[in-house]
Amino acid sequence: MQRIAMTLEYDGQDLCGWQRQDNGSTVQEHLEIALKKIEGKTVHCYAAGRTDAGVHAEAMLVHTDVCKHRFSRSPKAYVHGINQHLPEQIRILSVHAVAADFHARFDCIERAYRYQIWNRTTAAAIHRWRHWWMPRPLDIDAMQRAAVYLTGQHDFSSFRASGCQASSPLREMRELRIEQHGACIDMYFRADAFLYHMVRNLAGSLVQVGIGKSSSEWIHELLLAKNRTLAAATAPAWGLYFTNAVYDGFDSRDQFHHES
Amino acid sequence: MQRIAMTLEYDGQDLCGWQRQDNGSTVQEHLEIALKKIEGKTVHCYAAGRTDAGVHAEAMLVHTDVCKHRFSRSPKAYVHGINQHLPEQIRILSVHAVAADFHARFDCIERAYRYQIWNRTTAAAIHRWRHWWMPRPLDIDAMQRAAVYLTGQHDFSSFRASGCQASSPLREMRELRIEQHGACIDMYFRADAFLYHMVRNLAGSLVQVGIGKSSSEWIHELLLAKNRTLAAATAPAWGLYFTNAVYDGFDSRDQFHHES
Repeated sequence: MQRIAMTLEYDGQDLCGWQRQDNGSTVQEHLEIALKKIEGKTVHCYAAGRTDAGVHAEAMLVHTDVCKHRFSRSPKAYVHGINQHLPEQIRILSVHAVAADFHARFDCIERAYRYQIWNRTTAAAIHRWRHWWMPRPLDIDAMQRAAVYLTGQHDFSSFRASGCQASSPLREMRELRIEQHGACIDMYFRADAFLYHMVRNLAGSLVQVGIGKSSSEWIHELLLAKNRTLAAATAPAWGLYFTNAVYDGFDSRDQFHHES
Repeated sequence: MQRIAMTLEYDGQDLCGWQRQDNGSTVQEHLEIALKKIEGKTVHCYAAGRTDAGVHAEAMLVHTDVCKHRFSRSPKAYVHGINQHLPEQIRILSVHAVAADFHARFDCIERAYRYQIWNRTTAAAIHRWRHWWMPRPLDIDAMQRAAVYLTGQHDFSSFRASGCQASSPLREMRELRIEQHGACIDMYFRADAFLYHMVRNLAGSLVQVGIGKSSSEWIHELLLAKNRTLAAATAPAWGLYFTNAVYDGFDSRDQFHHES
């Protein structure tokens, strides 16, 4: 067998997230069905992060074990074959061989997400289900001041969903950057790892600052309070994109440029 | 009555284009049905350009006549009311009152389109139906050299579809710019007006240059030949965006910033 790492892009709109479940169309299920058609037997896939229903991925990293001979003959043809069996909203962008003990989730040392807001009086017609529509104007400066409090290592309990299974609420936010491009406001998050719903909870609270309902300092108080019930409502899934998974020596975005 | 000019955004993916037809969901039909609900009678709408099935619009200009009293009370509320009756892939972005003899099509002095290509080995999962997927790498420099031949006033008969009803094949191409942003290649077209399928025919032939099947000079020969059968196949509708309609004193994109 050969362990391989694949970079996946998917449109979460009509998907029930990454993880296989009893009813519902998930990325893991589609991928494992496609792999079974190639491999002729059941194959399990493991992802860097388990995205929720509606969440998109530009570069999700997934590992699995496949037939060494079949894969090595032509990794490019192998990926092309799997893509032929996937629905059009899921595509493998690249693949490479990794060590037999590599693990997409446990070896990941940094993850990145982008949260997109559509800040315009009228909802998006072309880009609907790709952003969170926010008709009230946002004060980007106030949001940026609030973001400063969130960078660094903190106990993110106030932004952790009740179902979160992580043993520790400590996370290191290495970057939180907010940029405006016309009607679109992009928030870039980069951390060692994220708690369950953490990005969407942070996005919801930052928007509460942006619309002037709370001050930038409120985010700091929230962080210190370590109490989820004080934070704003969770931002919708469809504005969220998994953008990168970093490992020792490579990252999932890199692979676009090294297709085998 | 009051004549009004509206700027529309629409996602052409599941629409049969602008013009009302016997069977099929069109922008004109949806808009006229919504307006009838507000106005209580049949209303006709006229657009700056008649986009085909699958083509998108970021800023299409449309004029119509509505009840002066109802509109003047609050143009913003009037538009909000129409938007409530439109499907989610069509939105009116802004509106303003115009002279009683204003005509969206006949008074338009310049139109702009953007054609988007997804130039990557693997098809787009997130942005599918938003670009023309071209897996072979494109030579942007060769395409730019070809684009130079197309700027200025020319007889565009070689890029005119057989059903074109325009009396003259002469058009003035004021700008043809090609830009690369990662996997996305954007082609910007700006002219006094366009012949039927002209942008898609130009896009198809420019891509033939980009993949090295024809030289940049071939575009010049094509233009001089005035023969549609010599050009490349028409590029698909879903990569095309109507982006601006210019009038004496305002344009459809401008209106984003002057919502009444």
